[in-house]
Amino acid sequence: MDFIDQRELTFLLYDWLGVEELTKAPRFAEHSRETFDAVLETSRKLARELFAPHYKKSDREEPVFQDGSAKVLPEIGEALKAFAEAGLFAGSFDEAHGGLQLPQVIHSAAMSQFFAANIATSAYAMLTTANARLLTTFGTPAQIEAFARPQIEGRWFGTMCLSEPDAGSSLADISTKAVPDGRSSLGMRYRLFGRKMWISGGEHEMTENIVHLVLAKTPGPDGRTLPGTKGISLFAVPKRLVRPDGPLGDRNDIALAGLNHKMGYRGTTNCLLNFGEGERFRPEGKAGAVGYLVGQPGDGLPIMFHMMNEARIAVGLGAAALGCRGYRHALDYARTRRQGRLPGAKDPAAAPVPIIEHADVKRMLLAQKCYAEGALALVLYCAKLVDEQAVAQGERREEVERLLGLLTPVAKSWPSEFCLEANDLAIQVHGGYGYTREFDVEQVYRDNRLNPIHEGTTGIQALDLLGRKILREKGRSFREFLRLVDGTASRAACHADLEDHAAKLRSFWSEIDGTIAVLSELPTGEALDDSWAFLPAFGHGVLAWMLLDQAVLLAGSSRPDIEPSFAAAKLWALRYFYEVELPRARQHLAYVGRRTGLLSGEIPTAVL
Amino acid sequence: MDFIDQRELTFLLYDWLGVEELTKAPRFAEHSRETFDAVLETSRKLARELFAPHYKKSDREEPVFQDGSAKVLPEIGEALKAFAEAGLFAGSFDEAHGGLQLPQVIHSAAMSQFFAANIATSAYAMLTTANARLLTTFGTPAQIEAFARPQIEGRWFGTMCLSEPDAGSSLADISTKAVPDGRSSLGMRYRLFGRKMWISGGEHEMTENIVHLVLAKTPGPDGRTLPGTKGISLFAVPKRLVRPDGPLGDRNDIALAGLNHKMGYRGTTNCLLNFGEGERFRPEGKAGAVGYLVGQPGDGLPIMFHMMNEARIAVGLGAAALGCRGYRHALDYARTRRQGRLPGAKDPAAAPVPIIEHADVKRMLLAQKCYAEGALALVLYCAKLVDEQAVAQGERREEVERLLGLLTPVAKSWPSEFCLEANDLAIQVHGGYGYTREFDVEQVYRDNRLNPIHEGTTGIQALDLLGRKILREKGRSFREFLRLVDGTASRAACHADLEDHAAKLRSFWSEIDGTIAVLSELPTGEALDDSWAFLPAFGHGVLAWMLLDQAVLLAGSSRPDIEPSFAAAKLWALRYFYEVELPRARQHLAYVGRRTGLLSGEIPTAVL
Repeated sequence: MDFIDQRELTFLLYDWLGVEELTKAPRFAEHSRETFDAVLETSRKLARELFAPHYKKSDREEPVFQDGSAKVLPEIGEALKAFAEAGLFAGSFDEAHGGLQLPQVIHSAAMSQFFAANIATSAYAMLTTANARLLTTFGTPAQIEAFARPQIEGRWFGTMCLSEPDAGSSLADISTKAVPDGRSSLGMRYRLFGRKMWISGGEHEMTENIVHLVLAKTPGPDGRTLPGTKGISLFAVPKRLVRPDGPLGDRNDIALAGLNHKMGYRGTTNCLLNFGEGERFRPEGKAGAVGYLVGQPGDGLPIMFHMMNEARIAVGLGAAALGCRGYRHALDYARTRRQGRLPGAKDPAAAPVPIIEHADVKRMLLAQKCYAEGALALVLYCAKLVDEQAVAQGERREEVERLLGLLTPVAKSWPSEFCLEANDLAIQVHGGYGYTREFDVEQVYRDNRLNPIHEGTTGIQALDLLGRKILREKGRSFREFLRLVDGTASRAACHADLEDHAAKLRSFWSEIDGTIAVLSELPTGEALDDSWAFLPAFGHGVLAWMLLDQAVLLAGSSRPDIEPSFAAAKLWALRYFYEVELPRARQHLAYVGRRTGLLSGEIPTAVL
Repeated sequence: MDFIDQRELTFLLYDWLGVEELTKAPRFAEHSRETFDAVLETSRKLARELFAPHYKKSDREEPVFQDGSAKVLPEIGEALKAFAEAGLFAGSFDEAHGGLQLPQVIHSAAMSQFFAANIATSAYAMLTTANARLLTTFGTPAQIEAFARPQIEGRWFGTMCLSEPDAGSSLADISTKAVPDGRSSLGMRYRLFGRKMWISGGEHEMTENIVHLVLAKTPGPDGRTLPGTKGISLFAVPKRLVRPDGPLGDRNDIALAGLNHKMGYRGTTNCLLNFGEGERFRPEGKAGAVGYLVGQPGDGLPIMFHMMNEARIAVGLGAAALGCRGYRHALDYARTRRQGRLPGAKDPAAAPVPIIEHADVKRMLLAQKCYAEGALALVLYCAKLVDEQAVAQGERREEVERLLGLLTPVAKSWPSEFCLEANDLAIQVHGGYGYTREFDVEQVYRDNRLNPIHEGTTGIQALDLLGRKILREKGRSFREFLRLVDGTASRAACHADLEDHAAKLRSFWSEIDGTIAVLSELPTGEALDDSWAFLPAFGHGVLAWMLLDQAVLLAGSSRPDIEPSFAAAKLWALRYFYEVELPRARQHLAYVGRRTGLLSGEIPTAVL
């Protein structure tokens, strides 16, 4: 079984997003549909043959703390080695850095198949490319050569070290310190001291080195670190010391202090790392993890957020892929499992029907289809914006950047929330079987449960969307976005069977517009108190737009290359979304901006 | 920490439900608040000291298949032994059967503390009492003596064997066969042949015997079983043969064929049992599991449903207890974990606030409070109806029975769905920590995920509520129920601060009433297609009623024995429920009865 439906992927990429257009830009001129398809097919095959087979085993036999390191299942390293040999770490990097210069959208589509097959194994690759991308964007040529190249080649892996035991969502409060330690050809050297928590891929022995990108505070002239985000810089801190053109040096002063034992995602080591303990490792004879400043001092957070945006879209992609996987499992089960008879069919001797015939099962499948395939569409759309940003110029580029900024918190959180709900429905479709580890869906759920948490919780995404991306921008990118919605609605209105949807879409977005107008008049704190309800409403609106946009495409042509049954299923899903899901969004929206004071300061939290 | 808040339990039992009234009935005249409190306190202590400590361990070290049996953690057996020694198996049974003749509502309140502490260990007790209750209700005196007594004493445990690998929700399709095998002092003897799936507590060595209550079909005159439910009878089938007044006999022909490995609830063995294999065990020299007919031939399903109703309420109670546990964990964490600052508070040097101060965290806590404590109220209300049924006479008794019938599918499904959602929120409040097995909430979630599945999925409950309990009864019990709602609304309308809620409650129920009128006019199949949306709307309406009913009580008196902060928190939760949750229910309701045809036969299921 393909966990990502190939017809769907082809439709989204080539028909809906028109990714072949990208090859007209000089950046992607070397590519063609043939090279895209080759990458997708290689990924499909590798995902199926090397990533999927150890899915359950890597859940059962999770990493163990052994001799100061984390020992992982050998199959994980083997799969990633094959991934590297296929050049997939290099996929979306510039040729100048040894990459294939593939569009991000193709790389994402390729990755979706790995995420669906085994998200925990794929996470090492995802983190490594995100790390290398940050370095190729902000590092010096020497840093790129020393730290990014080996990751682009898949020889080393990378991490990002942001959180600390007492500072997760609130990075201003980190206490890891970086003390100047001279210069080197790799940039300003520092010694780092502190503890980093939740570090995925933070330790293992699959590669000869690991590049940690670490947020730390540099002391001011008085030797003390500043409160807040200002003194935060970013450092490249390798597990083993790196000497330009030489073999790897000693172990850096980074000690694995513990492994977290997670609900899912178990193949990915998740570490508590101590930097600068000075006990097991003392590089060059003294305590402190040697790190190199990346970018300018004090720019740690803005730089990290560059990587974080990519990571957020990748989280959304992972969630979407797991949504698709659960949906495929549920669909397969519902078609083959026979149980019960339809209401009104009284003959007990008649054969039971496949459960897909039951209304409630259909409902659970249609919901999954909307959530999973909708999320995939959303994330691929954002990945294509990354490509457009790379090839656009001037004002158009800024507009794309704003649109991407607006949609990123949605691309992170909507798939995380609703594909998790999809996975819950996949379990329910399986009944008792779905609750057992003999089937896959309970693990898919457990794996996916991380996604609303890491790289910024859903609550943080809600604040980002409403606070930064809408209110602080005074609605600029939002109004630009509304023009896209309006364009789709206008095209839909030309088709008799989509006219009603067009009207509903317009009316929904005009409600959101009105809500934003109300929120703009409120004190910031009060407006943001409603962000938790605003985000899912906004997200549902985005999906309603995208699903209708796809339907217009299917209604507008009688394409011999698109199976009528494929189009019919899409239109049913569209109906489901507009009849069942959009009202759900409206109900959330009705809460926003009413100044009920329900969640503001006055609630007696002490007495709950 | 008490996983069930003691003030809440006291308030629900004594203030809201007025359970002391029950002691006026002869059946409960031996009891008093003191004996109730003693049972509750014993349970609280035992739950804390013997059930909670092995919660995580019994998840890590799940039962193993060994030498044909299931080996479980010794702590589970020890906890249940103490439970038996405290007389808790006997709690709600008649004195004539060796019971304490406690009201069901007190027994349920006691059980909620065990469920919260360790639901998998408590499940053995729950199944055993449900089994014994069925026998005391439908068995012959000899059967009660032989099979129920040892369970009431906690010396043997019991199971119910309904599902088969190909027949879960659809019991009409079971294929286990029962062939006559003579008479005995324990009733008509049969030999059973077939496979039973998902049997909780189906095998273990904690007790010297296990009483299985098994559904099987008896062959007609032509030796063939009938299709449908008509030929289904119920049999008591002991693991070891039972001889009246003698020691236990040989092993019966019941073989453990496999253990299911579950997502949660791992301490409870979950078995595939083969009856009548004739290989390992051949009682009296021949194949076939020896069983004794309970009740009349062909009455298997109606009898089992009697037990099932108790089991359904118990499932709701378990879900509510897990909801309460997750909520207490989340509340505790949110009060102590400091992170971030409130919007507008710009001083980065100020100490971070406890996360309970953040609007989104408050929202997640209020939702949990409504779901968890609301579910507990709902289930205890139903348990009290069981008691009222036992003491009422004539018409009143029938009315109580109808009300209980109406509310049972809600008591099973609403806690299962919404307390699971509560547990999901409890994880989210904990952030990354909540995703680890070092904390409890992820296990609480996994344990609770079974509840929407077993003893009738949520979809089945929805069909039961709308189809059997409302449409087939032509709304009789529904109209009786509406009078209760109306009474609460009238009382609430006398308080200025509840007047608005009273109006909202009335208007919501009049919408439900209108929806039922529409559904009554539709062909059954079409009406039932909407049951999945009707159930949660109805359930939310029931909870809105109960929460307001409690608020009236708090508003109506200035009781020195109720802390003002306790009342204040309840009123906040009420506000949350009416402002955020009731609109959610309304949105579901808006879908029902519109004849959209979205999920009816015409959908091209082959093309999803």
